[in-house]
Amino acid sequence: MITPRPGGRTARTQAVVFEAAAALLAEKDPGQLSMTEIAVRAGVAATSLYRRWGDVRTLLMEVAVERLARESPLPDTGALAGDLKAWTAAIAGSLASPGGSAFFRVYVATAPTGSAEMPGRARAIGRRLEQVQAMLDRASARGERAPGVLEVTDHLLAPLYMRALFGVPADPAFAEALVDRLLSQT
Amino acid sequence: MITPRPGGRTARTQAVVFEAAAALLAEKDPGQLSMTEIAVRAGVAATSLYRRWGDVRTLLMEVAVERLARESPLPDTGALAGDLKAWTAAIAGSLASPGGSAFFRVYVATAPTGSAEMPGRARAIGRRLEQVQAMLDRASARGERAPGVLEVTDHLLAPLYMRALFGVPADPAFAEALVDRLLSQT
Repeated sequence: MITPRPGGRTARTQAVVFEAAAALLAEKDPGQLSMTEIAVRAGVAATSLYRRWGDVRTLLMEVAVERLARESPLPDTGALAGDLKAWTAAIAGSLASPGGSAFFRVYVATAPTGSAEMPGRARAIGRRLEQVQAMLDRASARGERAPGVLEVTDHLLAPLYMRALFGVPADPAFAEALVDRLLSQT
Repeated sequence: MITPRPGGRTARTQAVVFEAAAALLAEKDPGQLSMTEIAVRAGVAATSLYRRWGDVRTLLMEVAVERLARESPLPDTGALAGDLKAWTAAIAGSLASPGGSAFFRVYVATAPTGSAEMPGRARAIGRRLEQVQAMLDRASARGERAPGVLEVTDHLLAPLYMRALFGVPADPAFAEALVDRLLSQT
């Protein structure tokens, strides 16, 4: 008797679905993608996708956060200023690259409109924020003064994203100045 | 001989088009709107709309900025802290209202993807920023220390918009704290 590896099939399905979604994201705007289209590309029943992710926004955000975590692990330079500067420089570079940041495009395309709640999307973003929190906790453990994770999103991520939304390039010097400004207030 | 009022016809056409676009914006997502749909609603040839605005993103941004200027004139309380607090409280309230802020929805839906330039969209936003600049100039003229308009967008607007994108409510106390923090660094 063959015992299936626990979670093996689910994990394989997720890998196939994430790969199909990532390939489609490279081809078109996140706002144009449907569950059905992703299901067809992955060769998986759309009903399975709805059962697992609920809606296409949640799925796309999970895909985007997973890629971000894999392709852009948070830096660990041994000092908070170094970590934050390396991280914001990477974000500024990614936002300025041709095609922009896939994460940013999904983040904007799946933004809540009005008062609609999207717990799945918030959970996916929350996983990235936990990694940011871990970076801040390492600094505190070393005896450094560290800002809260919301101060990081309000005063580092927000200006970089705002400028991307506006179409104003944020150069590395700007990213570095944001870090100095934040740390001077911590 | 009847001499037409200079600009009269153009102004009337613009008013009709803006009204049609605003009505459609109240019904659906800005990303779903096309020039043709707006032209049909306005009873104007789509070719005229393309000639005047170039693309639907520019038109929608002009409509959104015009409504913002009309419905939300920038405050003039006689002191910069008062102006900024009244203004950010209004933005926080608008973002939190059911259906959200029409300007914010258009701003996000027409965000540049990748390296595509959108000079018309930038010009429309630029008109709002000129009003912000005028508010800052009034403060300077009174002898107050005023931040630059980019510091205002980076550290007041960006955190409020970031939280709206994230689905995290920004309450009036948060908006007020952002102003205090900005002015303490000016």
